[in-house]
Amino acid sequence: VASISARGLPGIPEIQAGEDLAQLILTALGGETPDGGQLLAIAHTAVSKAEGAVVALADVTPGERAVELAAQQGKDPRMIQVVLDESVELLRAERGVLISRTRHGLVCANAGVDASNSGGEETLLLLPRDPDASARKIRARLGELIAADPRAARAGVPAVMITDSFGRAWRHGQTDVAVGLAGMQPLDDWRGRTDAHGLELQATWLAVADAAAAAADLARAKDSGEPVVLIDGLGRFLTVEDGPGAAPLVRPLAEDLFR
Amino acid sequence: VASISARGLPGIPEIQAGEDLAQLILTALGGETPDGGQLLAIAHTAVSKAEGAVVALADVTPGERAVELAAQQGKDPRMIQVVLDESVELLRAERGVLISRTRHGLVCANAGVDASNSGGEETLLLLPRDPDASARKIRARLGELIAADPRAARAGVPAVMITDSFGRAWRHGQTDVAVGLAGMQPLDDWRGRTDAHGLELQATWLAVADAAAAAADLARAKDSGEPVVLIDGLGRFLTVEDGPGAAPLVRPLAEDLFR
Repeated sequence: VASISARGLPGIPEIQAGEDLAQLILTALGGETPDGGQLLAIAHTAVSKAEGAVVALADVTPGERAVELAAQQGKDPRMIQVVLDESVELLRAERGVLISRTRHGLVCANAGVDASNSGGEETLLLLPRDPDASARKIRARLGELIAADPRAARAGVPAVMITDSFGRAWRHGQTDVAVGLAGMQPLDDWRGRTDAHGLELQATWLAVADAAAAAADLARAKDSGEPVVLIDGLGRFLTVEDGPGAAPLVRPLAEDLFR
Repeated sequence: VASISARGLPGIPEIQAGEDLAQLILTALGGETPDGGQLLAIAHTAVSKAEGAVVALADVTPGERAVELAAQQGKDPRMIQVVLDESVELLRAERGVLISRTRHGLVCANAGVDASNSGGEETLLLLPRDPDASARKIRARLGELIAADPRAARAGVPAVMITDSFGRAWRHGQTDVAVGLAGMQPLDDWRGRTDAHGLELQATWLAVADAAAAAADLARAKDSGEPVVLIDGLGRFLTVEDGPGAAPLVRPLAEDLFR
């Protein structure tokens, strides 16, 4: 019988640039050491803050296109400039939302740029420059810290996921997806395989990392300030190696039917 | 501290037309009675089979357009005809996949039509005619059966969700979404509200029902023949009333930027 469980970790403070997230997570877990059968899902905002992927609005000089789009959309032209800087292609600009393809290939609202307010200053939080590399780095640091206890080290290092909330083209509301990943296969491919009744399976290419990101977001109240969720029960998708990351979840431009 | 858990229910047999799903679920749960703090996520295929939302391929006569599309896409023209019958608008037909808007307003591959093989006959499973009504009906029947035990009845009736696996425009793989719902709010609206640090929240309109559907799909192995998953920990989204169903998750045509 398969089952999963997920819980938000309380007690993680507002993240500062340069912060050791792996250490903060272990501290938040108290005496408990996460193991190779567990997944840590981290909201990208925490990773972006720790990495300093932050732009102060006061430092941005908007160009002509940003000024024009901002006037059309009723937005701050400096914010629009940062979204354009993060984008390789603008797909739509309507009702105050820019939908673009980011440098990472992600198609999402405002290129994943979030308004923030750290230290009283108006800032924008970008997505991490390379979210898969960020996930690998946090996982490696967790491994280092866990290795300090040889008994815990034998139980393996948890997988690390970095999440963001994405809207959907044809559905209301947002769900979390995996933008960075280490130690978990992002997709579970059953194409051509059969089910318990010997029938070919219908839904056969499962975005298990995105499903785990969505599950993680249910395990915290949105106003709880809990950027990290610990998930149990996904062992069949977890790997000792870091693996291909979240990149395989991105549909390549050549396959895009909805540009 | 928020937390969720989800587990697939073993022991539900292949569903026949006319089957009492509520009774099958209670039987699968053994002595355990689900309560008003729990959500039952049911794969639409089980509901479609129980409701007889099934078409025998042998009974389908494809029209001219279906024959033409089938030749282009390398598909069975009878299957294409059924997809067209279920659709109000065909958005794309490429690489063997038709993406359309269904009668329910859902935008998905093949209008939610799945190949099946019940009783040795080649059949197609449609989406339930009115998945929100199906969810309400199953929930009402659960309520009837649970009411037989006055002690259990006081703990309330679980919410019921009907799920399907949808692809995504810009991401590989499928995740489950809620196509029918009773007893749960589909969206959690935080727009304009602030987080624990007094900052305006970024991801503010959460498709909690879709996130729960995705979580449910992680709680069963895909070849396990487990159409029903029981989820705990979503009490803050559950309601005594059946509520608006999954319909509010569908972005109306007028808001569609990607037709």
